[in-house]
Amino acid sequence: MTPLKNDRFLRALLKQPVDVTPVWMMRQAGRYLPEYRASRAKAGDFMGLCTNPELACEVTLQPLERYPLDAAILFSDILTIPDAMGLGLYFETGEGPKFKKVIQSTQDIEQLKAVNPEKDLPYVIDAVRLIRRELNGSVPLIGFSGSPWTLATYMIEGGSSRDFHKTKQMLYNQPEALHQLLSVLADSVVAYLNAQIQAGAQAVQIFDSWGGALSHAAYQEFSLGYMDKIVKGLIKENEGRSVPVILFTKGGGQWIESMAETGAHALGLDWTTDLNQARQRVGHKVALQGNMDPAVLYATPEKIQQEVKRILESYGSGTGHVFNLGHGITPEVDPANAGAFIDAVHTFSAIYHS
Amino acid sequence: MTPLKNDRFLRALLKQPVDVTPVWMMRQAGRYLPEYRASRAKAGDFMGLCTNPELACEVTLQPLERYPLDAAILFSDILTIPDAMGLGLYFETGEGPKFKKVIQSTQDIEQLKAVNPEKDLPYVIDAVRLIRRELNGSVPLIGFSGSPWTLATYMIEGGSSRDFHKTKQMLYNQPEALHQLLSVLADSVVAYLNAQIQAGAQAVQIFDSWGGALSHAAYQEFSLGYMDKIVKGLIKENEGRSVPVILFTKGGGQWIESMAETGAHALGLDWTTDLNQARQRVGHKVALQGNMDPAVLYATPEKIQQEVKRILESYGSGTGHVFNLGHGITPEVDPANAGAFIDAVHTFSAIYHS
Repeated sequence: MTPLKNDRFLRALLKQPVDVTPVWMMRQAGRYLPEYRASRAKAGDFMGLCTNPELACEVTLQPLERYPLDAAILFSDILTIPDAMGLGLYFETGEGPKFKKVIQSTQDIEQLKAVNPEKDLPYVIDAVRLIRRELNGSVPLIGFSGSPWTLATYMIEGGSSRDFHKTKQMLYNQPEALHQLLSVLADSVVAYLNAQIQAGAQAVQIFDSWGGALSHAAYQEFSLGYMDKIVKGLIKENEGRSVPVILFTKGGGQWIESMAETGAHALGLDWTTDLNQARQRVGHKVALQGNMDPAVLYATPEKIQQEVKRILESYGSGTGHVFNLGHGITPEVDPANAGAFIDAVHTFSAIYHS
Repeated sequence: MTPLKNDRFLRALLKQPVDVTPVWMMRQAGRYLPEYRASRAKAGDFMGLCTNPELACEVTLQPLERYPLDAAILFSDILTIPDAMGLGLYFETGEGPKFKKVIQSTQDIEQLKAVNPEKDLPYVIDAVRLIRRELNGSVPLIGFSGSPWTLATYMIEGGSSRDFHKTKQMLYNQPEALHQLLSVLADSVVAYLNAQIQAGAQAVQIFDSWGGALSHAAYQEFSLGYMDKIVKGLIKENEGRSVPVILFTKGGGQWIESMAETGAHALGLDWTTDLNQARQRVGHKVALQGNMDPAVLYATPEKIQQEVKRILESYGSGTGHVFNLGHGITPEVDPANAGAFIDAVHTFSAIYHS
C-alpha cells in the first residue's frame, strides 16, 4: 500500500498531535454537488449508484477534487445490510428509503441470517478496494454502517418514521424479539465493518441516526448495548496502524459518558452539544468529532468563518478534535460555502496546535 | 372563586408536600378521544374548535370526565399569536399548520405589532374564563403559549419544517432582524399569558417545541433569552396563590441548568433525559415535569405500569415531580391505555410521599 500522505484525521482520532484540525463533512459526496447529480443521473437512481463500485468510487472522490478534505468516506447507503437480508430496499422520489418486505413478527425475525459481506454485499467491499486504490494514499478512507437500532427501525417501520410506533411497540411489548433482531444485526455489522477494514477502510463510523428517539434507559439497552458489542468485535489494527472507531448518535449528547465507555476512539456530536462541555465530560477518554449546524452553510462565508472560529475556540487547544458538521450537508447548500467552511477550519485552527 | 379541591399539581410545582404524584398529559384533549373527534366534527375544523369558547371548553373538560387527572389545560393552538398578528393560520388535512402570509423581510417584521390579547384574541381569554367556571374548583387550569423562537419558525417557514432553512438563514445572516421579531413575540407572549392568568389560569406552560433544533449557543441567545424575559414579566401571584411557570424545550435536556436560572418554577422534560440525573442537576432549584415516552402508551397496561414505576423510582422520594408524557399523546393511542397510565401514577407513587 502507498504510504498515507495526510494522516491528520487518523492522528486526531487517536489524540496524537496535528498541525491543523482535520475536517470532513458527513454526506460530503452528495446532492449539493452538480457533479454528483450528474453521476446519479448516469446511474439511473440512487441504488444504481450504490451498487456500482466504479460509480460509487467516482462520487466518493468528487468532493476531494474540489476541497482539501482530510478524509474520504465510502459512498453507500446505511440500509445495505437489511437489503442483503432480503428486505428489498428501494427509494421513492422525495419519500426516502422503503422496504418491500417489512419485519412484522417473531417468525420474520427468526428467518433472518447475519450477512456475509464478501458474498452478500460484494459491491460495497469492491467499492472500498477501488476507492482505496484510487485515493492513492492522499487521505484516509472511512468505512461505515448504520447502528443495529437504526437499521431495526427501518426494517420494522418499512421506511422512515416520525415516532417509531411499531418499533417501540415491539420494544415495550416484545423486548426479546427486538433483542433477537438487534443481535443478528450486530453480528452483521461486525462482519460488514471488518470486511470494509480488510478491504482498506482506515477508520469506521457507526451512524446511530435514531438512537436519540429513545428514552435514556431504552437507549442503553437497545442501541448502545449493541454498538458496544460491535466496537469490541472490530479489527483493532490493520497495515500496522490502529483503526479508529467513531460512534455517532444523533441527539445523543446527554449520553456521551456511557458512549465513551464502549472503547470507541471518538464520538460524533451534533450541534446541540456544547463542545467545550463535552470535552470536559469525556475528553480524557475519546476524541470528539463535530459539530457545526449544517444550516450555517446557508449563511454567508463571513458568518461561516465566525461560527467555525467559535467552535474551534470552544474545543480549545490541543489535539482530539475532528471538525465536521453535526449532521449531513443538505442538498440546497452552495458548494462555494462548503469550500469556505473547509478553508476556515484549516486557516483558523493552526493557532490551537502550535 | 370556588376553593380548589385538588391542588396537588400546584403544590408539586412549588415543591410543597403532596399525597401522590400529580399527573396530566400534554395534548390530553385530543384526537385519541372519540368524544374529541365528535366535537371537532361539530366545529367543522380545528380552527373552528379553537375559536369557539364553548367548544374549546367542552373539549378541555372531556379527558377530565374520563380520567382522574390533576390538571386541565386550555384547549387552543400554539399559533394563535401569529394568527392574531395577521398571518392567517390555517390547517390542511394531514399537513399541519400553515400561514397564508409568511415573514420574508425586515419590512415584514417592522410592520408587526405586539398583540393585545383581550382585543385580538378574545376567544382564548373567553375560553379560559368559561373553563375556569365550569371546572368549579375541581382541578387547576393551565394556560399556555408557544415560545417566541417556536412561533418565529412557523412565521418564517410558513408551516412545519424539517431543518428550519429560512429561519436559520435569518439567524446567521440577519440576527438583528430575528431579534426584532423575537422581541415583539416575547412582548406578545407576556401579555397573552398575563391575560390568561387574569382570566383564571392558575399555572402556565411555555412550549418551546423547536428550541432543540438550535446549537447550544444559539439556543441561549435566540430561544432561552426570550423565555427568560417572559418568565420575569409574568404575574407572580393571583387569587392569593403563586402562579407557577413551566418551561418545556423539547430536546433541551442538555440545557436544563440554564433553563433553571430563569426563575421558572418547573422544567418539562422529554424522555431522553434521565429524571434522576436531572433532579441531581437542577432539583434544588426547580420542580420537574415528565417524562414518559408517549410511545409507551402503545404497549400493554402491564408494560405501561412497569414504565411508570421505573420513572417514579428514578425521581425518588419527595415532592417536586409532576408526572406527564415527554411530548403530546398521539392520536393512535387506545384511551384505555391512557387510563391505565394515569391510574398507575397515582397508585404507585404513594410510597414516595409517605
